[in-house]
This record gives sequence, structure tokens and C-alpha cells, in this order.
Amino acid sequence: VFENRMPRYEVLSEDAMAVLDAGWRRLVSELGVRFGDPEAREILRQAGQTIEDDIVHFDPDWVAEQVAKAPSEFELRAPNPARSVRVGGAHMMFCPTNSAPFVREGSQRREGTFADYEQMVKLTQVIPELDSTGYPIVECSDLPLETRHLDTQLMCHTHCDKVLPAAAFHEIGTIDAIGLARARFGEAAVDEHAYVWGVVNANSPLTWDDRMLGSLKHLARANQCVVTTPFILMGAMGPVSIPAAVAQQTAEALTGIALVQTIRPGCPCILGSFVSHTDMQSGSPGFGGPESSLGLLISGQVARRLKLPWRAGGGALTSSQVPDAQAAVEGFNTMACSFLAGANLQLHTLGWLESGLVTSYEKWMVDLEMLRILLDQFTPLEIDEASLAFDAHAEAGHGGHHFGTAHTLERFRECFYRPHLFSTENFDRWTRNGSLDAAARAPGRWKALVEAYEQPAIDDDALGRLNEYVERRKQELSA
Amino acid sequence: VFENRMPRYEVLSEDAMAVLDAGWRRLVSELGVRFGDPEAREILRQAGQTIEDDIVHFDPDWVAEQVAKAPSEFELRAPNPARSVRVGGAHMMFCPTNSAPFVREGSQRREGTFADYEQMVKLTQVIPELDSTGYPIVECSDLPLETRHLDTQLMCHTHCDKVLPAAAFHEIGTIDAIGLARARFGEAAVDEHAYVWGVVNANSPLTWDDRMLGSLKHLARANQCVVTTPFILMGAMGPVSIPAAVAQQTAEALTGIALVQTIRPGCPCILGSFVSHTDMQSGSPGFGGPESSLGLLISGQVARRLKLPWRAGGGALTSSQVPDAQAAVEGFNTMACSFLAGANLQLHTLGWLESGLVTSYEKWMVDLEMLRILLDQFTPLEIDEASLAFDAHAEAGHGGHHFGTAHTLERFRECFYRPHLFSTENFDRWTRNGSLDAAARAPGRWKALVEAYEQPAIDDDALGRLNEYVERRKQELSA
Repeated sequence: VFENRMPRYEVLSEDAMAVLDAGWRRLVSELGVRFGDPEAREILRQAGQTIEDDIVHFDPDWVAEQVAKAPSEFELRAPNPARSVRVGGAHMMFCPTNSAPFVREGSQRREGTFADYEQMVKLTQVIPELDSTGYPIVECSDLPLETRHLDTQLMCHTHCDKVLPAAAFHEIGTIDAIGLARARFGEAAVDEHAYVWGVVNANSPLTWDDRMLGSLKHLARANQCVVTTPFILMGAMGPVSIPAAVAQQTAEALTGIALVQTIRPGCPCILGSFVSHTDMQSGSPGFGGPESSLGLLISGQVARRLKLPWRAGGGALTSSQVPDAQAAVEGFNTMACSFLAGANLQLHTLGWLESGLVTSYEKWMVDLEMLRILLDQFTPLEIDEASLAFDAHAEAGHGGHHFGTAHTLERFRECFYRPHLFSTENFDRWTRNGSLDAAARAPGRWKALVEAYEQPAIDDDALGRLNEYVERRKQELSA
Repeated sequence: VFENRMPRYEVLSEDAMAVLDAGWRRLVSELGVRFGDPEAREILRQAGQTIEDDIVHFDPDWVAEQVAKAPSEFELRAPNPARSVRVGGAHMMFCPTNSAPFVREGSQRREGTFADYEQMVKLTQVIPELDSTGYPIVECSDLPLETRHLDTQLMCHTHCDKVLPAAAFHEIGTIDAIGLARARFGEAAVDEHAYVWGVVNANSPLTWDDRMLGSLKHLARANQCVVTTPFILMGAMGPVSIPAAVAQQTAEALTGIALVQTIRPGCPCILGSFVSHTDMQSGSPGFGGPESSLGLLISGQVARRLKLPWRAGGGALTSSQVPDAQAAVEGFNTMACSFLAGANLQLHTLGWLESGLVTSYEKWMVDLEMLRILLDQFTPLEIDEASLAFDAHAEAGHGGHHFGTAHTLERFRECFYRPHLFSTENFDRWTRNGSLDAAARAPGRWKALVEAYEQPAIDDDALGRLNEYVERRKQELSA
């Protein structure tokens, strides 16, 4: 997994950080947070917090104490041990776009299908920069809703050997993610190590609903990784002020983590963030502008202060409909800020269009180029006497050229970033090759990647247990 | 002029900076720098430097002493005093793409003309974020080469009231830039204040040729602003190592500035940087990848250490042929690094395509959006009790919405960045509006800006003197 050893871009002073800190503390104590699940409220009441109807008023010091029990670094185990990842510190983990109901392929926009799911799981497996599919990699409109999560999660087991996600958007999905992991790796192993990770969204503002709390409780009891993520579009689910939204996000995420730590101290958690804005003219969400970027930079700084692993809202976020210049500017702005702010988990890294309604095969390729550029850019340079290449200067001389120096000849294959989609073709060559822009060149690239896919090995016994689990659960859930 | 009050992103340690410092010092003393102009060599010899043939071997401490005479901040006066700019410190000055021989408009790519020149000068005047046209804003293939600089520079006087550039790519152009400024503002005023700025390029590696030194001497003697800019494509004009290229760039730029300060102590200078790489497969230049970005971040850090105003190579650099996703990623990467690194002068901010061979009207609009996003993003947030908007949280309540809170209603017009080209339209609306990507929406935008142009007032006497100067010089140069 990539280690981001470049400096963090810290934009807030200690004073400003103290204001934000006071902000979430006041929210959780004075306004409190709604917990829609009676059992969750009872757990928090027994832990000494004040309940009024379905609102929990927290002692902020208690929240901080509970949060401090979450590990600042942990391991997420993958089926293939070589694909296991460290979470936290300088480590960065990447997943493609999740949850899009629609797929775009060129000018075609259509509902996602199980065939798309398979294709995108294969792409995830074959793209070395990706660490997990996340869940769901795309919605499958052609599968029955009640059992969809079983087919898709089984595919993550059989077609990919990277870190497994949990279908955490409902309680049953979470139960089955844990069930599948136990069927494959054994109960004891899954209790001891985190094998799955699930995103649990707050229902902002200031609400954890019963559906999400169901998933949270199951993940916590199973000692699996919980990503508590508020989703705040300022102007809709939060005030039209970045500091206010970040304080709110912190209040929501930390109360979720406090509950996890009360249920299972030491359970791995990730502080989720997802702050952007509502276009106040159209009412539509906006991504990739200054609001997203500042939201990311500040969220990262807050997470570091709390010593928590941090999820950046997303990689290449955009409101654009197509993989055009807008999609690229907005996406790159978001992804670069996620690197500058030191994200540990970056969701929606590849493919996102239309504010998340669409995952686009072409955009997967554009975003993969962005990601590779940033991975290279955030690798510190060696600066020492040798890197100054004095001999090369002496060899090329004044006004000479460096094409043929010994220094160049030794390094020319590896010295610079090599793009996979972007082009330095001159006008004549580009015209001869069909005058294709980056999006038009992308289909060849992603199709070649799917071609290169090889299904990873899986133990026959384990496969049998997974299939058996899925069969049994399908019968139960269809009944 | 914009003040960048966000923190600088410093990527190098003090140790690494010391290595780079030792690097340029060794280059200027051991290898020396070729000065192709005998008078320049004589000036340097008299100042105590060692000359061997056309190579000047410098005492690096002497170079540093001379460089220290350059002001760390100064004023560039514009014809309209309200458009004058501070250069240095946190100030950032922006110019559109310069020097492109070709223009792209949609699918049409053609040689630049004087009509394009006029159109782009008008765009510069009407876009408030731009501070100067730079020179030449585009090549005019339809004007005679010998007198082209007179027509184009006169147009900068008559059609724009922002800071004036010098046609510094040859000595005659520089003489006439200064001549026009003196004709308009008077000899004494021009001797006392910087009214024009010129880019003087090193002929890398390690060479100042006689043509560029001619311009440098004239600007220095006239006390006008000199931007000493090496242009280093690693693998061609420099080693294939970023530290080596930055040390070389520093050696070249500082020896130029040392000569300026020897001729006219205190003359305003800007440390120019332009490091990118050669695609070692195609031999073509590459921009906007990790090499450009790290080059920018490090160059900015070097300039700050030297207390010199700094020119970032460019704004939205790219090798792409069209304003597509590649152009946007590469361009945004470059421009964002220029902000992170605290550039004082950003050339090539709008329009650049094809590694600088093309200025594209559509890309002007894409890049203007990038610029505006970054200007907003690099404006520090106020973080105080009021910004936490506690009352808004109380008003919206748990699970409520923020569309109608008093806090939102007071701020909804100004609270978020408002795009001019990018769109948050949903799929249905976007489809109804013609399914246009960002590049396809751009023509309407730039044409509306040209429509909105108003010619600035110019004093009749001054205009008479400028016209007289141009007439006389055209006769002399055609003779």
C-alpha cells in the first residue's frame, strides 16, 4: 500500500483548530445527536450519557476518551496476504467509485448491471493501485434487491483477492459480509483480525438512523473496520459555512466511533469525511470546487489531531456529465487535496461522474492517470550530491544537449513518469492517429485491462463454504 | 493584485536546500556560464569574475551579493494606476499564454493573426483576474516580421490599460518597448519606475546568448523589470534529474540577475523557472506531470530562500492537442502547484495547448475557471465562533434541512464559488441543453467577454506620441 511521505499541507492554525474542537463539543453536548436505534441509546445511557427521547446528549470528554481507544493504525487483511493493507499513518488505500446506479460508456448512459459489476471487479483486481472494490462497486439493476448483496459480495471473494468490503448500507448486508468472511477464514480469525470494512453513513444533520446503527453494531461486535461517514452537502445537510460543516461532521463521526468503542474497545475505525456544497441556484450538489478542497484539507488536519485514520470523501469527484475538462479539473482538485491532506482511505478514486450517479469506464482511465501522476508526485525526491549530476553538466557542456550523456543513457527508461492514457504526440502524429481526445482513447485502455485479467486462485474448500453460505442465505431471504 | 495568504507547501528540508545551494555554486564556479555578448563579459570581468574565452567563471559569493541588491518586492506601474501591481511577497500576477504560433478555435487550428492578437488583448483587458498581456500574446503571421513588435506593443498601449510587457525576445523589441513607454510616460518617470517587464530566456544549458543579453542590458539600463528565465526540458537542456535541473536553473537565472544588478543595482528582477521533461520515447516535451509539479514546488522554495520574486513557468501547461481531460489534469496540476509554491508571476495562465504551440480560445475559458477556483481556494477561511453557525444547527435540528435557515438565507448568494463555465446541471437539463461538454460550452463564454470589452481611455497627446514613435521606427526598421 502506498505511503505518502510528502509533507501534509496544513491550512489551519492551532487557534482555528481549537475553535473547531470547541464546535463539535458544543454540538454533541448542547444539541446532542439523534440515535434512531433503542439498543444504541441504551448502550450510551449505560455508559453515562444523557438521553432525551431519541436524542443523546454527550459529555464531550467521554467521547474523546472513547475515540482514543480506536487504533491509530491497523491492518486490513486481504484474502491474498500480499494484498493486505496497513490503514493509518502515512498509508493510503484506494477504491474505485462506489454506489453509482448508472454506468456511462461513451455516449451511452444506462442502469448498472451484474455484468458491469463483474467487469469492474476485474478492473479492480488488475489495477495494482487499487486496494479494494468498496461496496457496491456499481448498482446491479438486473439482480433481485433482497439477495443482490450476496451475489456481489461473493464475486468480490471469487474474482478479486484484495481487501473485502461489507455491504454496510443495510444490516442484512453487513451480517452477510461478516458471515461470508467467517465462512471463508473461520470465526476465530475474523474475530481477531479485520477482514472487511464497511461505510456507515450518518443521516446528517446530527442523526444516526436505525438502519445504519444496525450495521455499525454488527461490525463493532465482529471487530471489523467501521468507516463512520457523515455526508454533508452544505446548504442542505449542513450550514453554508465550511467551519460549521466540519464541526458538524466531526460531531457526527466521533459519536459514531464512540459508540463503536463502547461496544468493542479497540475495534478499528476510520473517521469518514464528505463535505461539499449545494449549488444554491440549481439545488444540485457541486463537487471539486474550493468548498470540497478546503473541506478535505481541514478534515485531514482534524483527523490527524484526533490520531484517527481518515477517509477522504472521494478521489475524482465532479458534477460533470462526461469525462471532459470540467470532470478532470474538479476530479483532480479533489484527488490532489486528498493527497495533500494525507487521506488513509480514498473512496471514489476512479470513474465518478454526475455527482456520483454514474460510474464511467472512460473516466476510470482518466482518473487512473490522475492517481498515477499523484502517486509519483507524492514520492519524495532524493536530493543528494549524486542527484545533482555534475558530471552530466560537464559532459553536455554549455549549450549542448543531454540526450546522449551517460547520465541520461543510464536512466532514460525510468527517470520520468510514463502516462498510460495521456499523450505527448505532436499534431501530425495525433492527427494521423485519428485526432482522439483523452476520453476517446480510453475505451482501448480499459478493455485491454479487462483482457489482461486473471482470476485469482481460491481454495476449493473455502469456495464450497462460500457457495453454501450464499445458497442458504438466498433461501432464507427469499422466504 | 491577488495576495496568496495561504501557507506555502514546502517540500524540501533545510539539508536538501543546502545541497541545491551547493549545486548552483559549483556550476557557476567550476563549469561557469557562457555569456555570448562581449560587453557583458567585460562588465563581469571588471566586476572581478574570471573569463576564459566566452565562459564566465563566477565567485558564487559575489553572485549572491549582487542578487541581494535586487528588491524582494517592487511595483510594476500600469497605464491605469488602478491596474499597477506589487510584485513579490504574497502577491500573484497573472498573464495569458504567450508566444504561441498557432490558434485553436474548436476543430480549427491555424496560424495566429493580428486579429487574434486584438481579440486576446481585449480578453485580457476584460478579464479582471489578468494583470498583463505578456508578450507576444500570440504570433501574428500576417504582419511583417521586422515591425510586428511595434504593431503589437502599440496595441497593448491602446487596447488595454494593464501592465505593459516588453518584446524582449530580441534587442530591437526591447528598445522599442522602452521607447514607447518613454514616449508615453516621459523619460524621468520610466527611469524611476518599472513600466515594462520582459522575459529574458537563458539558452540552457548554461548559456546566455548575445540576443538575450542585448535585451537584458537594455532593460537593466532603463531600470525596467527583467524576468531571467531558463527553459529546461530535462533530457534535452538539462540532466534527467529534478535536483540537477533546479540547480542548473538557479545557476543560469542568478548569473543573469547578477549581471543586471552589476549594470543597475536595485533594478527589479524576477527569478524565472521553467522545468519540465522530455518524453524519452517520443522526444516530445511533456508538461503537467510530476516533473513539472515538483519543479515548481522546489523552484518556489529556492526563490523564497533567495528573497527574490518568482515566476512560475506557467499556469495551465499541457501537451494535449485539445481542451480535453488531459489538458485539464495537466493544466490544473501545474497551476495548483504554482499557487502552492507561491508564484509571484504566473505566465501562460490561460489558453495553452500542444506544449505551447497553440493558444486555444476554448482553453482560455477552461483555464479561467481553474484560475477562479484556485483564487477562491487560496483565500483563507475565517474560523471563529460566528463561522460555526451554532444557531443554524439549532434551527435545522436533527435530520432537518438547511435550505431555509436564517443563516442560509442571509448568505446563499455569496457563500459558495460560482462557476462561469462548469455546470451542476442534472442529466435531464444537460441533455435538453444540447449535451455539451465544457469545451463545447466555451465559445459562448469567450465571445460574450469580447462583446463586453470597452476600450480604455488614453490621453490624446500620449496617443499622438506613441503613433509618432511607431511611424518613425517603422521607417527606420524597413529601411
